Amino acid sequence: MAKDKKKQSRPKAETPKGFRDYFGTDVTERKAMLDRIAEIYHRHGFDPLETSAVETVEALGKFLPDVDRPNAGVFAWQEEAVPGGGSGDWLALRYDLTAPLARVAAQFRNDLPSPYRRYAMGPVWRNEKPGPGRFRQFYQCDADTVGSASVAADAEICAMLADALEAVGIARGDYIVRINNRKVLNGVLEAAEIREDQAEDALRQIDKFDKVGRDGVLALLTTGRLDDSGARIDGVGLSEVQAAPVLAFLTSKGADNAATLDNLAAAVGGSAMGGEGVDELRQIATMLAAMGVAEDRAVIDPSVVRGLGYYTGPVFEAELTFEILDDTGRKRQFGSVAGGGRYDGLVERFTGQKVPATGVSIGVDRLLAALRAKGLSGAEDHGPVVVTVMDRDRMAEYQAMASELRAAGIRAEVYLGNPKNFGNQLKYADRRSAPVAVIQGADEAERGVVQVKDLILGARLATQASHEEWKSQPAQTEVARNDLVGEVRRILG
Amino acid sequence: MAKDKKKQSRPKAETPKGFRDYFGTDVTERKAMLDRIAEIYHRHGFDPLETSAVETVEALGKFLPDVDRPNAGVFAWQEEAVPGGGSGDWLALRYDLTAPLARVAAQFRNDLPSPYRRYAMGPVWRNEKPGPGRFRQFYQCDADTVGSASVAADAEICAMLADALEAVGIARGDYIVRINNRKVLNGVLEAAEIREDQAEDALRQIDKFDKVGRDGVLALLTTGRLDDSGARIDGVGLSEVQAAPVLAFLTSKGADNAATLDNLAAAVGGSAMGGEGVDELRQIATMLAAMGVAEDRAVIDPSVVRGLGYYTGPVFEAELTFEILDDTGRKRQFGSVAGGGRYDGLVERFTGQKVPATGVSIGVDRLLAALRAKGLSGAEDHGPVVVTVMDRDRMAEYQAMASELRAAGIRAEVYLGNPKNFGNQLKYADRRSAPVAVIQGADEAERGVVQVKDLILGARLATQASHEEWKSQPAQTEVARNDLVGEVRRILG
Repeated sequence: MAKDKKKQSRPKAETPKGFRDYFGTDVTERKAMLDRIAEIYHRHGFDPLETSAVETVEALGKFLPDVDRPNAGVFAWQEEAVPGGGSGDWLALRYDLTAPLARVAAQFRNDLPSPYRRYAMGPVWRNEKPGPGRFRQFYQCDADTVGSASVAADAEICAMLADALEAVGIARGDYIVRINNRKVLNGVLEAAEIREDQAEDALRQIDKFDKVGRDGVLALLTTGRLDDSGARIDGVGLSEVQAAPVLAFLTSKGADNAATLDNLAAAVGGSAMGGEGVDELRQIATMLAAMGVAEDRAVIDPSVVRGLGYYTGPVFEAELTFEILDDTGRKRQFGSVAGGGRYDGLVERFTGQKVPATGVSIGVDRLLAALRAKGLSGAEDHGPVVVTVMDRDRMAEYQAMASELRAAGIRAEVYLGNPKNFGNQLKYADRRSAPVAVIQGADEAERGVVQVKDLILGARLATQASHEEWKSQPAQTEVARNDLVGEVRRILG
Repeated sequence: MAKDKKKQSRPKAETPKGFRDYFGTDVTERKAMLDRIAEIYHRHGFDPLETSAVETVEALGKFLPDVDRPNAGVFAWQEEAVPGGGSGDWLALRYDLTAPLARVAAQFRNDLPSPYRRYAMGPVWRNEKPGPGRFRQFYQCDADTVGSASVAADAEICAMLADALEAVGIARGDYIVRINNRKVLNGVLEAAEIREDQAEDALRQIDKFDKVGRDGVLALLTTGRLDDSGARIDGVGLSEVQAAPVLAFLTSKGADNAATLDNLAAAVGGSAMGGEGVDELRQIATMLAAMGVAEDRAVIDPSVVRGLGYYTGPVFEAELTFEILDDTGRKRQFGSVAGGGRYDGLVERFTGQKVPATGVSIGVDRLLAALRAKGLSGAEDHGPVVVTVMDRDRMAEYQAMASELRAAGIRAEVYLGNPKNFGNQLKYADRRSAPVAVIQGADEAERGVVQVKDLILGARLATQASHEEWKSQPAQTEVARNDLVGEVRRILG
């Protein structure tokens, strides 16, 4: 070929490592899910916000909230400094939707309502080492209330989260929103007389409760333990007496909220901070009940510890409780799909003023995976009707057929490839998951009829039909040209 | 203040220059518009595609389609080269949705149906000097058919574009899709015996027909002209005899498609290429008619020249023909909101194989501006119902009210700021454009009633009411607590 000499310099047709494309139902299923969530958020008075994907590094801060990702980074570059143009600033892609909210809350603090309820949905970017199932661009879906110190804001977000999960199709009983409070833990640390220099280390160990359980945390808080590989992990050095209230806190979930709150009140002893935390949880429980959110939907649960180190007040997590088969074929609970809590200092970096805020982030990919696992993602079960092309000169007539079908609300397309090989057209229809193929040759056109092929029935017959059934061709029907739409509609059911 | 010493190092709360945020209805109006367009595209058999925002510079190519933006650039950065991690590649944000389509069409050529119809909607980024109304991140909305050389694909896109404009609310008669063909122009250049080394220059001048008109192009093709500032612009150096067929081409629009096609056939003379182009337009006209798209919706119009230099076959442009007032208060037609055409070499860069493609791009911001100008953007005329807080201790009861309203499908929220100053709560309701405020103090609670304030009527009365009318407080009604939802529903109408 004449072009061969250029072969060397051809670019690779690949996304950068860790990036991917979304095709067809990947896009529509996610969109349908986010649309339903947005409707719930909107009904609760939350307004959409879509910030710029690009921020100055200065505004963003080099700060990622998840403490277990110390190597997390951003994609950043420096602008050229051009008079009247580029500023020489360092710019970066947002790594989450909270940092831009902080910038917006500071930038537009005189224009936004206060408190400001906003939701945001969109991609974020992380400059991390890509890995299996670990991408450098992914969706987040957040709702936050900025400027309210009231736990009513937290209760509202928990109730809204439960509503959102039901709106996308998760049945009541298949999820639970669990609520804890960092202040209660602070009270417990106070009651246990844990030194300030030990507190951070203790928090880090408590955060492992999900993984290592009660005895594991006890060991980690005291003398240390061996991990799975046999390596020794040092303990914090607390006495068992000191560790006791912490473990009482983590395991204080009772038969109902009232019992749990009593256990917590005991665990915090005389700590004022702890008492405040328990009181906040009590208020949240009361408000959830008033909003008609029963304890089978959202419940006080002190074993929720993920992110306790990051948040400053109430924390919450939504878990899906139904079982799925994991990669090894074992049953396990689906697990967490959303988390959030109250945090301070959102806009303080910018303005010096503390602004209280609380919010939740739904794990978009995880929730979508859950919907798919339950058959709830709303995927279309077939593609468009394909009008085949037997006679290139009558393309206009084929297009008229497709137009008529569309006018009747039926998804339809004309085959636009080279029509010479009819087999290729049927292969195309198959690849498109077409439910119906429409065929009209010169002979049919002359007689004013059209062949309508039921491809779903055809596929079933191909594997199941008897020879007689097959010969009678029940999957292909000749109808008058004027009955095309009616016949296709009949097949689609 | 103790924090004052930190003041110096506080980051600026600003988007980078040329970037912006979208709030509330900015987001929902655009989304509603794109959802309607997506529905039309989907019904025509187009599948959504959402590519990664980040591409390798190698895959992207440093290539922008709009010839009038020679300084256009991309935002790019180099990855760190880390073993097992970053590749050292240069990465960049996509500058349009076509370059990623080319990469996808090459990368997945064995998996995608062929022809492949796809639509894409999303932000793109341009590293250009920002200016008024000129942003460095903006939305594009494209539909393309890859792998079909048939003009049926072009006709389909023109018909779909007309449908899409009507779907978002543009009335028939308020828009026109105009169709031209680069091959006809090529035929005209051939017929005019224009030298190959003059062709590019001639094309550039023809591209100005929209701006300078017939006589302007005549001058530019021949001896040159003075521009508005009095500066001399050199002509291409053609004779008037050579320029004549070009001008005949540009002004060949007749009373209907048949007349226009006859004029074009005359203008291309004996050129085979020109004849092929006219024949393509004739086929497109026939197919549009068969699809029920009359000439008042899509019409052959050789005066469409924008982008003729870029495209290789049919080109199309959608114009809104209704008048708006421009910045100086003068009436003018709204103008172009979409454009597209047929182009070659989409995936050739990657694979060495020519793959024919045709597509259209809708100017999202311009079309949305048009809908707003016509009052068609579907903006909500009010915000949520605001439940005020007279008594902090009864927050749970206020939340119950909001929950009841939401359960009835009414957007509602509880005031979450500091409730001490009731005036602030009404100011907040005003800022939220709340249609209704709900008020219940201790007195009303005891009596089992609630005050429902019609804020829309209240605002009207504030400017128009007589003193008597005002005193009777018709905008505020006391109803039984159980009638809250009914009363709010009555006010919302």
